[in-house]
Amino acid sequence: MAYNVLPLTKLVEQFERLPGIGRKSAQRLAFHMLGLPKEKAEEFANTILDAHRLIKKCAVCQNLTDQELCPVCADGKRDRSLICVVEDPRDVVAFERTREYNGLYHVLHGLISPMEGIGPDQLYIKELLARLSDGTVKEVIMATNPTVEGEATAMYLARLLKPMGLKVTRLAYGIPVGGNLEYADEVTLYRALEGRSEI
Amino acid sequence: MAYNVLPLTKLVEQFERLPGIGRKSAQRLAFHMLGLPKEKAEEFANTILDAHRLIKKCAVCQNLTDQELCPVCADGKRDRSLICVVEDPRDVVAFERTREYNGLYHVLHGLISPMEGIGPDQLYIKELLARLSDGTVKEVIMATNPTVEGEATAMYLARLLKPMGLKVTRLAYGIPVGGNLEYADEVTLYRALEGRSEI
Repeated sequence: MAYNVLPLTKLVEQFERLPGIGRKSAQRLAFHMLGLPKEKAEEFANTILDAHRLIKKCAVCQNLTDQELCPVCADGKRDRSLICVVEDPRDVVAFERTREYNGLYHVLHGLISPMEGIGPDQLYIKELLARLSDGTVKEVIMATNPTVEGEATAMYLARLLKPMGLKVTRLAYGIPVGGNLEYADEVTLYRALEGRSEI
Repeated sequence: MAYNVLPLTKLVEQFERLPGIGRKSAQRLAFHMLGLPKEKAEEFANTILDAHRLIKKCAVCQNLTDQELCPVCADGKRDRSLICVVEDPRDVVAFERTREYNGLYHVLHGLISPMEGIGPDQLYIKELLARLSDGTVKEVIMATNPTVEGEATAMYLARLLKPMGLKVTRLAYGIPVGGNLEYADEVTLYRALEGRSEI
């Protein structure tokens, strides 16, 4: 800000700290927020406070919820023999959007990353193992992102779970639907070839 | 959201109402906000509330400020014979960023727009006229946007102010600095030609 109105400067700074919001957008958002009727701005602020107050991790799968159990774990119609392991609650949202997956989830809230000093103990792996002890679960799907950390975490868990007699699977790699062969990188293309199926 | 965690859904909806934020960004921002430490989220929410509580319109120029007078009007070193009329407080920020303008401002908080039912009475025109009565001001610069509404408002004000013996000017039209002649539209190019100056 070229001139100094402190509460406004602070508001711009707050918006600027959000991911993907640059200086110009932050300024636009701050002015927009100021231009809102007082009760609308209060509603916005209170929704943030409410979310922080009410949302916690599901006692079973560590997904975000405002209840003791998340909607998926609480749903009696879900297949309890199948657990899909993901990095982040956002990934649960992505899977639920497909409307095809009918099993449960387990949210690790991170990936093993020696570079960032995150080891298995900082993830919710203990809680995952506890869910596998009673024999209900038959298959665990590793659905971490196809990055170095995602692969390492999937590998680590697979080695931990296979001796327990569980089926451990990994999401398929391949060409994205609607994607273009021409633009696919070599590794993806190789994986797509490797994972080909009969038609 | 594919599954229903109400406080989270509400938070996504709040972010989605902001200008330039789509569904995906809103979701990312909501999750980011949830992932912040509690005190950081509270700081964000409180900054919004503070801004609304503390910021008001400058008693003279209607620019936003947390004092009785905005920093520009309060600055004794500004040229009080010159007023730049703008639509929005954002425009003041833009002018101040040039560090070249040394006069005062007047913020209309809108433009005359019959389409949206906004007439001169809904803008801060009365307040502008009050500032011109004591003869300190010699020139009024119309710095509204070069849109239909901006032009109409500038014309309306010019017709109102000229009989008061004031010099009324309009920002120059032309090629933006760093712009490309090839991509300039016909009207801009014509105006640039018309407004050419000797070098």
